[in-house]
Amino acid sequence: MTSLSHSVPSAAAPSGSVSSPAKRIQIDFAERSYDILIGESLLSDPASYEGLKGHSALMVSNTTVSPLYAARLKTALGTRHAQLFEVVLPDGEAFKTWETLNLIFDALLANGCDRKTVIYALGGGVVGDMAGFAAASYMRGVPFVQLPTTLLAQVDSSVGGKTAINHPLGKNMIGAFYQPQRVLCDLSLLKSLPARELSAGLAEVIKYGPIFDTAFLAWLNHHIDDLRVFEPAALSHAVQRSCEIKAEVVGQDEREAGLRAILNFGHTFGHAIEAGLGFGEWLHGEAVGCGMVMAATLSQRLGFVSAQWVADLRALIQRAGLPVIAPILDPHDNAGRYLALMRHDKKSEAGDIKFVLIQKPGTAVVQSAPEALVREVIDACCQA
Amino acid sequence: MTSLSHSVPSAAAPSGSVSSPAKRIQIDFAERSYDILIGESLLSDPASYEGLKGHSALMVSNTTVSPLYAARLKTALGTRHAQLFEVVLPDGEAFKTWETLNLIFDALLANGCDRKTVIYALGGGVVGDMAGFAAASYMRGVPFVQLPTTLLAQVDSSVGGKTAINHPLGKNMIGAFYQPQRVLCDLSLLKSLPARELSAGLAEVIKYGPIFDTAFLAWLNHHIDDLRVFEPAALSHAVQRSCEIKAEVVGQDEREAGLRAILNFGHTFGHAIEAGLGFGEWLHGEAVGCGMVMAATLSQRLGFVSAQWVADLRALIQRAGLPVIAPILDPHDNAGRYLALMRHDKKSEAGDIKFVLIQKPGTAVVQSAPEALVREVIDACCQA
Repeated sequence: MTSLSHSVPSAAAPSGSVSSPAKRIQIDFAERSYDILIGESLLSDPASYEGLKGHSALMVSNTTVSPLYAARLKTALGTRHAQLFEVVLPDGEAFKTWETLNLIFDALLANGCDRKTVIYALGGGVVGDMAGFAAASYMRGVPFVQLPTTLLAQVDSSVGGKTAINHPLGKNMIGAFYQPQRVLCDLSLLKSLPARELSAGLAEVIKYGPIFDTAFLAWLNHHIDDLRVFEPAALSHAVQRSCEIKAEVVGQDEREAGLRAILNFGHTFGHAIEAGLGFGEWLHGEAVGCGMVMAATLSQRLGFVSAQWVADLRALIQRAGLPVIAPILDPHDNAGRYLALMRHDKKSEAGDIKFVLIQKPGTAVVQSAPEALVREVIDACCQA
Repeated sequence: MTSLSHSVPSAAAPSGSVSSPAKRIQIDFAERSYDILIGESLLSDPASYEGLKGHSALMVSNTTVSPLYAARLKTALGTRHAQLFEVVLPDGEAFKTWETLNLIFDALLANGCDRKTVIYALGGGVVGDMAGFAAASYMRGVPFVQLPTTLLAQVDSSVGGKTAINHPLGKNMIGAFYQPQRVLCDLSLLKSLPARELSAGLAEVIKYGPIFDTAFLAWLNHHIDDLRVFEPAALSHAVQRSCEIKAEVVGQDEREAGLRAILNFGHTFGHAIEAGLGFGEWLHGEAVGCGMVMAATLSQRLGFVSAQWVADLRALIQRAGLPVIAPILDPHDNAGRYLALMRHDKKSEAGDIKFVLIQKPGTAVVQSAPEALVREVIDACCQA
């Protein structure tokens, strides 16, 4: 479903720095295919945008990202679009709402944007999810390009076409499967990431090992310290391999009818942590990191993997700078609170919670589990 | 792309009335196909819902439709879904907004509805568009069934998967292409339609003649009076042929990349009328009826069709009970106002207005036209 080739969109970025050759991963869907480009200084390189048309374009970013990168994008786009507009959203998961989404629609309509207007999503997962859903819905669909600025967005949310906003009663409950025209993973943007955000991104990188690729998991065990100090070659490989695996999985199952659900390893418990603590208290990646420890523990209690394997995964997650002890969500009925929150997960059917479990290292399954066992796992993982 | 067969879902409706055999039109898309069923008493017939699964279901209707038909749907569904919920929206185009759409999301989430929840859209075009967009967006897509209760919805809006809500700056600007699982056109529901709404629906029926089928246009010329008095056999044929043509066109072009745009014959001028007078002043079908006269006149001025052909079409539209004289939208610069409003049409590209024109009877093209000529047509059509 995916192919990997090496190409050089241009010899050097306009900034004068010498770029490494960009890597290109192709995602094939029934209707069309598109490229993920991974490399240094892609944002600033006009060649990154070759083939993108549209009389007008809209850059969507937020108050944190816009001052850092919007000018670079504007310069790189040059005269590609006759009209280039920008909308700057408030920053944060708390603003992943209809009201904020509507700022994008307001900008599109006030500027007379048409069906061929290209939307550039410049930011992390929240910007990508909202700009993507706006692109999916504006006039029933306009082209969009993902320019992820965080590790988490580069390895996870910008690839695969999931877009959404939150509803007061649930996260990512309103959205669309909608594929971008292109994803540009500019590795040079990661250098300015705060350490905590880097760690949160590493949770989604680590995820790909247990569910799909034991060799990658072994590589991560060797290079986790390099990744935490932004070692360029290590980061490049981590982003590339993560995107390859994600492309492979979503290429087989765009609409999450089956296989794709394995990408939610750690997310069922993780969502309960996020919702239970209040969204934003823990970063998404932190909750997923801890959620993977819990899901791995459940896998072990079901007899799928060894206690040693779980301990090794837990150690890796901890070395990535992520929490491995689950928080108490309710001192009176902690497990009950976790269960109630997990029943609201999108994977649930008729209240039956579906967990992504590791059947054996490198292979995941989605299934339910006896409630008593889940309660035991929650109790065990909430203790140091 | 479409096939037509006759089938009998059940011998008689539970009401005791003897149903005519339902007609079945299949729509084939790349991903999946679904059926349009056309017949008497389909709403009340449990057999209409065969094969629809889902632990839970949500009926979406409005304050006008719910008292008339919701109980019938509930009875016909019986125990098909373990949980059946209802949300009743305020009635009218003015409520085709995010706020109203959110009532559907609130109901889905408050009731713990999952990814397999079936949404039943019971109502006219507004209910269908909103329930359809909710189905497209809730958890990134749940199954839905169209149960159109007006002629306009049966022959146009419920078929083809266009869903949308309005934005203060434009109609149907936010939406999705999203196909239903099934469309049930229950002809017996049309009997209670007010005459004005029947006429509005006839505009969309008439549309199919000039753009696709001259034999159907000739049939309409003979049967327009029968249709206006709800003659069952005539209504059945009109709905069936309309759905067949629409299925044929959208089956070839789901996302309106080309051919499908011909279904907007009369809609470019019509949208200008609706927007210029204020939405709701004229019914959508009334504006389309008058818009077809304008688009036909423009086609004639471009040398595509004869003046006699336009006069005949105008007479048919008038006999259908529809306005054929365009309203003055601005006494100071009427044509300018029309043009400004038409530039906001979704078919426009970079401000260039695209018209659906009749190249020859039965064949439509989408193209722009010289502004001076368009101004002449507007002036001519605004005079009695």
